[in-house]
Amino acid sequence: MPPLEIHEQRLQRQIDALAAISEAPPPVVTRVLFSPADREGREFVRQLARELQLELREDAVGNIFARWAGREPQLPPIATGSHIDAIPNAGRYDGVVGVLGALEAMRALKSAGFQPRRSLELIVFTAEEPTRFGIGCLGSRMLAGALPPAAAVKLRDSAGHDLNYWREQGGCAGELESVQLARAAYAGFVELHIEQGPILERENVAIGVVEKIAAPSTLHLELTGVGGHAGAVLMPERHDALLAGAEIALAVEQAAKASGSADTVATTGVFRIEPGAVNSVPCRAHLEIDLRDTQLSSRDAALERIERTVPEICARRGVAFQLQRLHADAPAVCDAPLVATVTAVCQDLGYANRRMISRAYHDSLFMAQVCPTTMIFVPCRGGVSHRPDEFSSPEQIRCGVTVLAHALARLTA
Amino acid sequence: MPPLEIHEQRLQRQIDALAAISEAPPPVVTRVLFSPADREGREFVRQLARELQLELREDAVGNIFARWAGREPQLPPIATGSHIDAIPNAGRYDGVVGVLGALEAMRALKSAGFQPRRSLELIVFTAEEPTRFGIGCLGSRMLAGALPPAAAVKLRDSAGHDLNYWREQGGCAGELESVQLARAAYAGFVELHIEQGPILERENVAIGVVEKIAAPSTLHLELTGVGGHAGAVLMPERHDALLAGAEIALAVEQAAKASGSADTVATTGVFRIEPGAVNSVPCRAHLEIDLRDTQLSSRDAALERIERTVPEICARRGVAFQLQRLHADAPAVCDAPLVATVTAVCQDLGYANRRMISRAYHDSLFMAQVCPTTMIFVPCRGGVSHRPDEFSSPEQIRCGVTVLAHALARLTA
Repeated sequence: MPPLEIHEQRLQRQIDALAAISEAPPPVVTRVLFSPADREGREFVRQLARELQLELREDAVGNIFARWAGREPQLPPIATGSHIDAIPNAGRYDGVVGVLGALEAMRALKSAGFQPRRSLELIVFTAEEPTRFGIGCLGSRMLAGALPPAAAVKLRDSAGHDLNYWREQGGCAGELESVQLARAAYAGFVELHIEQGPILERENVAIGVVEKIAAPSTLHLELTGVGGHAGAVLMPERHDALLAGAEIALAVEQAAKASGSADTVATTGVFRIEPGAVNSVPCRAHLEIDLRDTQLSSRDAALERIERTVPEICARRGVAFQLQRLHADAPAVCDAPLVATVTAVCQDLGYANRRMISRAYHDSLFMAQVCPTTMIFVPCRGGVSHRPDEFSSPEQIRCGVTVLAHALARLTA
Repeated sequence: MPPLEIHEQRLQRQIDALAAISEAPPPVVTRVLFSPADREGREFVRQLARELQLELREDAVGNIFARWAGREPQLPPIATGSHIDAIPNAGRYDGVVGVLGALEAMRALKSAGFQPRRSLELIVFTAEEPTRFGIGCLGSRMLAGALPPAAAVKLRDSAGHDLNYWREQGGCAGELESVQLARAAYAGFVELHIEQGPILERENVAIGVVEKIAAPSTLHLELTGVGGHAGAVLMPERHDALLAGAEIALAVEQAAKASGSADTVATTGVFRIEPGAVNSVPCRAHLEIDLRDTQLSSRDAALERIERTVPEICARRGVAFQLQRLHADAPAVCDAPLVATVTAVCQDLGYANRRMISRAYHDSLFMAQVCPTTMIFVPCRGGVSHRPDEFSSPEQIRCGVTVLAHALARLTA
């Protein structure tokens, strides 16, 4: 095979063109599941796949599959891909690099005259971001069977529209029961993604090879105490929702620290109180808690500790609570042979590389339940993501696409 | 003197008419210092005073004085009054009952042929509410000399306009130095007000006679930590502004409980974090803390404990802070003979009454520094105030005005 030519400027133009398809003016990228911008973005990707003469199909939840048929099409294919949906006020690289980068990799392989033995398939996953329904990785979660169709149809967005409403908007056909993949439906899955953390940039390393993806879990908590004038209600008579929330936020921190693993992280990222006036005792608090670990046992130890502590704190303070475990996913251990293959590619190309843990979750978390999986990370400036100033340079992205292309070539050869 | 006739329907019509003068549509009342609505409300009150042939004057900060000259005008007058400014999204009774009720009391006394020996004066205080400049009781605070003119002219609103700008908008003339009253400028001050608490309604008592007004203090706190992805930043590396704030809110509660007085109340009523996303470590927090006590020593013990604890917590967590003591006022002890007079009036009228502590502050807090002072409280539904559904019935208000009128008659006779 002649050397692969990755056209970093062509790829950058495509990234910029997709960024312009947004619900908000530039530089902001917002594409929420099956909004007009998301649908237009999906068509943009389909058109690029058609130009590469890939075979397109879509499943009942809108996952897009674009296949380059191999010489032995009966073999389980190798898959690559990511997502193009974007949270409100996001940037242009998260997910997109793994979709447009995979197409560029296929383009380069085709130009080089490469003929895969196994089929090679791009997957564009539906709604990796939790914006619409509050749950992340909708498409890959259903592919892995981790979200049963009976639970999926009960999902509702903040306007009360359910998944079937949005499937209709998105033009999805077929039964949700048909989405789940058979185990080993693919021989392997490799996802290219920006790091969304500062390590590669800090260490001046071109490529991260992901060996673990932390297990994420999200809790929503509503606290209802009793309000009143800050002057009128004496301390022993109080049922202050903010103070219950404050104790819980500190207990969340303690739960992570006492989990038995230095890797457990727990964050109260959302904390809102009502009425929020200096002379009013807070009557309500809303907390959203994020909990992650590369090990399920310590993550669950922390999770259970929080779920045990919340009722104790609330009982002592006379504050009512509603605690909802939104999801509690298992961690993914990446496939050692795949990790070795990607590492070998980096070494052959002379790219500085390192093993990494992904504490952000990705569609790979669920694809790892289907088939051997790993991820390729490229640096992003300052570790910033989910913001309009998210940035990876064309050259950094080219390195990632080059590694992806060579890895896909080896895996499908 | 023939029996006094308090016209509860006439008074209610005036309360409703003043409520219609608002920056926001009904039922919301909003009248911020020297806004067009506040100025129109002030003119509404002046017109009622003119109809009663009271002598009107205004001081340099916009306090309105309406005098019914006594037979011996050289004697220090008796004063009554309250405020008509209203926080955003307020109701129609807070302050207004003490202004329009005082005018109704004078009307009834005039109709009954009463002739005061001492002069009787209504004071409509400027900006009891802290909305414009963040500090409450602007008018009475300056009358008492508790806010020196040199400090007053430095006050700025959120748009950057200072007190002199707003004095010009309000048509105030004269020098701020002339506002402070001489000690004993009045022989006494009695303020009628809704309770803004649930006690009178709960105990089915018509009248509260205030013997103490708690000392209020306000702290503003800005916390600046370090943000980051909730998955990427390990626990020992965190400088979480929310967690520092949570510890401080709990320390504020402890400071009140450990003050040595069961009367100390401390409230973190405002608690906002940034960026407020479930998967982001909070980088900033803004807290507003309210602290009150009827005793200065225990209030200050709690205040100093908080001011000592904030730097400790922030140093331990590596979070930067800015702590500002907005004000720390002394409590007021009401005048025992005045309290006895009002209580005797209630008993003569056959009205159920009780002694009360006002934990909300009022212009009386500062008038008590000028002359003997007390307050007359009437019940309000559910203890609710500072909301459009604030409510005291015409009959409840009539009882309060009746007590005020008789008390003023005795004090000026």
